[in-house]
Amino acid sequence: MSDVMNLNAVTPAFVDTLRAVLPAATFRDANASYLEEPRGRWQGQAAVVLAPASVDEVSVILKAAHEARVPVVPYGGGTGLVGGQIKPDGVAPILLSMERMTAVRACYPEENVLVVEAGAILEDIHNIAADHDRLFPMSIAAKGSARIGGCLATNAGGVNVLRYGNTRDLVLGLEVVLPDGQIWNGLSRLRKDNTGYDLRNLLVGSEGTLGVITAAALKLAPIPAGQGTAVMVVPSPAAALELLSLARSHMGEGISAFELIHRQGMAFIAEHLPDLRLPFEDFPEWCVLIDVGLARGLDPADALEALFEAAAEQELVSDGVIAQSEQQRRDLWEMREQIPEGNRRVGSVSSHDISLPLSHIAEFIEAGWQALAKVSDVRVNCFGHLGDGNLHFNVFPAEGKDRAEYTHLRDAIKTCVHDLVASYGGSVSAEHGIGRLKVDDLEKYGDPVKLALMRQIKDSLDPHGIMNPGAVLRAG
Amino acid sequence: MSDVMNLNAVTPAFVDTLRAVLPAATFRDANASYLEEPRGRWQGQAAVVLAPASVDEVSVILKAAHEARVPVVPYGGGTGLVGGQIKPDGVAPILLSMERMTAVRACYPEENVLVVEAGAILEDIHNIAADHDRLFPMSIAAKGSARIGGCLATNAGGVNVLRYGNTRDLVLGLEVVLPDGQIWNGLSRLRKDNTGYDLRNLLVGSEGTLGVITAAALKLAPIPAGQGTAVMVVPSPAAALELLSLARSHMGEGISAFELIHRQGMAFIAEHLPDLRLPFEDFPEWCVLIDVGLARGLDPADALEALFEAAAEQELVSDGVIAQSEQQRRDLWEMREQIPEGNRRVGSVSSHDISLPLSHIAEFIEAGWQALAKVSDVRVNCFGHLGDGNLHFNVFPAEGKDRAEYTHLRDAIKTCVHDLVASYGGSVSAEHGIGRLKVDDLEKYGDPVKLALMRQIKDSLDPHGIMNPGAVLRAG
Repeated sequence: MSDVMNLNAVTPAFVDTLRAVLPAATFRDANASYLEEPRGRWQGQAAVVLAPASVDEVSVILKAAHEARVPVVPYGGGTGLVGGQIKPDGVAPILLSMERMTAVRACYPEENVLVVEAGAILEDIHNIAADHDRLFPMSIAAKGSARIGGCLATNAGGVNVLRYGNTRDLVLGLEVVLPDGQIWNGLSRLRKDNTGYDLRNLLVGSEGTLGVITAAALKLAPIPAGQGTAVMVVPSPAAALELLSLARSHMGEGISAFELIHRQGMAFIAEHLPDLRLPFEDFPEWCVLIDVGLARGLDPADALEALFEAAAEQELVSDGVIAQSEQQRRDLWEMREQIPEGNRRVGSVSSHDISLPLSHIAEFIEAGWQALAKVSDVRVNCFGHLGDGNLHFNVFPAEGKDRAEYTHLRDAIKTCVHDLVASYGGSVSAEHGIGRLKVDDLEKYGDPVKLALMRQIKDSLDPHGIMNPGAVLRAG
Repeated sequence: MSDVMNLNAVTPAFVDTLRAVLPAATFRDANASYLEEPRGRWQGQAAVVLAPASVDEVSVILKAAHEARVPVVPYGGGTGLVGGQIKPDGVAPILLSMERMTAVRACYPEENVLVVEAGAILEDIHNIAADHDRLFPMSIAAKGSARIGGCLATNAGGVNVLRYGNTRDLVLGLEVVLPDGQIWNGLSRLRKDNTGYDLRNLLVGSEGTLGVITAAALKLAPIPAGQGTAVMVVPSPAAALELLSLARSHMGEGISAFELIHRQGMAFIAEHLPDLRLPFEDFPEWCVLIDVGLARGLDPADALEALFEAAAEQELVSDGVIAQSEQQRRDLWEMREQIPEGNRRVGSVSSHDISLPLSHIAEFIEAGWQALAKVSDVRVNCFGHLGDGNLHFNVFPAEGKDRAEYTHLRDAIKTCVHDLVASYGGSVSAEHGIGRLKVDDLEKYGDPVKLALMRQIKDSLDPHGIMNPGAVLRAG
C-alpha cells in the first residue's frame, strides 16, 4: 500500500514557505546521485533536496513537514544497502541531506569522547581520533563516504564489532530532532546514566523513521599498545570457530576482528582487482583474518605465532601468514576490505546479511550451500564477521553466466537462504538494517508482538507518519 | 498526585478470579520483607503477593490486571536503592515476585551465552558461569540477593562496567510480558541483529514501568588468562584519572575495574567491621583499586608493578600494594566491597549516586566538599567507579552526631549535591535508577523533551498506567 492516501505532496507553495525561513544554501539541486543506491536496485525520488546547516534548521524543516504532512527521507552518505535512503514510490519526499552538518563540536581525548555532527564522514572521524592518539573503532568498507548519522541510524556493524561492539555501543549521547520539530538535547558524555528510558538506543537503528539524529557524542578507545594481523588457513568453518575460542582463551578481548574468508572471495578479487596482493597463491577453501590489539609487554606477532602453534597442534590450522610489518598488515586488511568491491564487480544475484547463533554457523553454511544447489547453479561467496555470528552469504551467477539469467530466481534464492536462517533462530538483517528491501522479511520472520510494539511507538512519536515512510514498517 | 483516581483497588473478587486460574503456590504471604527497602526510607504495601512460576502465569496476571486496571509492582531481590520496588501510597498493588522463576533455561558456553529466568540470583549466575569456565562480569555488593530481572529492570552497574559495560551491555535477548499480558519472545542469542527498533534496551532500565522481564539471554565472557589486583595511593582524584589514562595506555581494555577509595571509607570499615583486613595502617586520603585481566603471556602482578613504576616517575602514586596471591586479591576486593556495609552501619544523611564527565570529576569532588561544608558539619565518603565517571558521594553526620540531627537538612544537602552535579553536565542517577526517590530530580534536571517522549511511550505501551505506577514517571 502506498502512502498517497495519508501524506500530502510537497507543493511549490510549501517550498516557498521554507524559502522564506531558511538560507538559500539549504536548497540543493536534486542531483542524480541522491536518488541512486549502491546496488542499483531502486531509483529514488525527491520533491526537494534540503541540506540544513544547523539543528535549528532541521527543526524548522521537520516542524513544517509535520504540519503539512509531507514525507521526509533523511540522507547521509547514501551507502546503505537496504534502500533506507531511497523512496522509489508514493509521495515524493523532502530529501534531508546532512552533508553540511559535518562539524566537530568538541573533542575530549582525556575522556575518550568526540562530539560530531551527523554529516561527518566516518573516515574523517577515524582521522580526527587518530590525531588525538585515539581510535574510533567502527569501520566499514564504505568508510570514505558513509556519514556517522547514517551509521547511527542503521546501527552499522563492520569489522571491529567483536571487540568494540556495533555503532550502538560506541555512542554516549545524541542530539535528535523529533518528527514534530522538537529538539531533544541528549548529547551526554556520561558513561553511566540511569535517568529514565533509553531513548538513545531507540533512535539508534530506527533508520530515520522516528526522528533525525543531528549530532552524537561518540566513544573513542585507546589505541592498543601493539597491533597485529594474521591470516590462517582452517579446514572448515567449524574449525574456525574452535580457533576463535582458542584465540579468546589466549588473548580475551585482545581479539579485535575475526573474519571468515572463502576461496570464492579471493578468486573474485584475483579476477577483477588483479593488482591487489593476496596472501596465498593457491586460494585455500577457508581462511580467517585475525586482528589483535594487545597490552604493553606482548609482541602481537609473537602472540599470533603462539596461537598458530597451539592451533596447529589441534589441527585447527594448516597454513598461515603473520604480518611482520605495518605494510603487510595493511595488505592483509586490504584483501579483506576489497571483497565487497570484488563482489560488486561480479554482480550478485542476491546478497544476504545474516547472523546466527554461533553454535549453528558451521551447520548453516553446509546446509545453505546444499539448499541453494537445489534451486540453481550458483556460486556462493560466504564471508564475514564470524566472531559476531554475522555472515555475508552472497549468491552469484555460475561461471560464464550473467546475473540477468537469474532474475526470475532471485526471490526463490532469497527465500531459500532466509527460511534456513530463520529455522536456526538467526536474523535476516545482521548489520544492514531493514530499509525498504527487507520490510517483507521483517513481517514474515519477525515476532508479531514486537512488530505491533514497533508500530505503536512509531504512531506515538510520528503520528502523521512523515518520517521515512515505507522504511522498516510498511507505509499507509 | 496519587493514582487512586485512575486505578482500581485489588478486590477480593479480583483475587478470586486469579485463584480460579492460577496454582495455589502462586499466592504468597505478604511477609514484611516484601515491603521494606534496604535504607529504611519507605514502607511498602501489597494487596496480594503473587509469585508466578512461568511466563504464561505472568501473562495471565498482567492481562487480568490490565483489564481490571489494578496496579502491579514487579519485585526482584528487593535490593534496589531508589524505592522502585516499594509502593508506599495510592492503591495497594499486586506485588509480582519473580522468586519462583529461577531456572536456567539453557547454557551455551561455546557461544558465551546463558539463558536464565528473571528470578535467578546474581551470585548464582556468577557460579553457573564459573562452572562453565566463563565469567558473568556484572557484579554489585547485593549480588547474594539481587535477582537478574531487577538488575535488568534497573540497568544495574557495579564494579566491572569499565571493561564489560552495564547490565544493558550484557544482554542479548529478553522475554517480556507487556502490560496487557502479551508475551514478546525476544530471547535472541544473536550478537548482531538489526531487524527493527531496539525494544530490548527500552525495556532494560525501564524499572518495571513498561512490562515485566521474565527471562534473558546473557552474554558471558571468557575468564581472562591472568587476573591481578592492586591498591595504589594517589595524591588526588586528578592524579587518579591520570593514572587511569596511563593504565589504559599500558593495558587497554585489560583494566577491568578502577575504583576510587577515600580515607573515610576505610575509617568506617575500621570502626564498624574491625575484622576486615585493610591494606594500609595509616589510611591514605585517596587510593584506587585497580583490577586487571590480561592475555596469556603477561603476568598481572608484573604488569601492575610496571604500571606502578611508570606512575611513580610521574608522581601519580606514592605507595601501593599488589596482590601476590588469590587470597590477597580477595582481601583487597573485600575491602572495596564492604564500603557500602560500613556506610550502612554508620547511617548516611543522604546518599548520591552520581556521574560526571570524566574531565570534571576532580573539580566536582573539591567543589562538592566545599559546598557541603557551607550547608552543615558533615562527613563525606566519596568512592566509586572512577573509570566510569560514577561516584557515590555519600554524606554522613559529623563525628559523634546522630543522623536524626540532620533530618531537617537532608533536602538541602541533596539539592546542594545534585545542583552541582547538574551544573557540570552530570547525572543524578548513574546506576541506581529513578525509582520513586528521584522522580522529582528527573523532573527538575531532566531534558523536558525527553521526559515528554518517555511519557508518550509509557502511555502507548501501558495505557491504563498499571505498571509500577509512580516509579520513574509521576503517577496520575
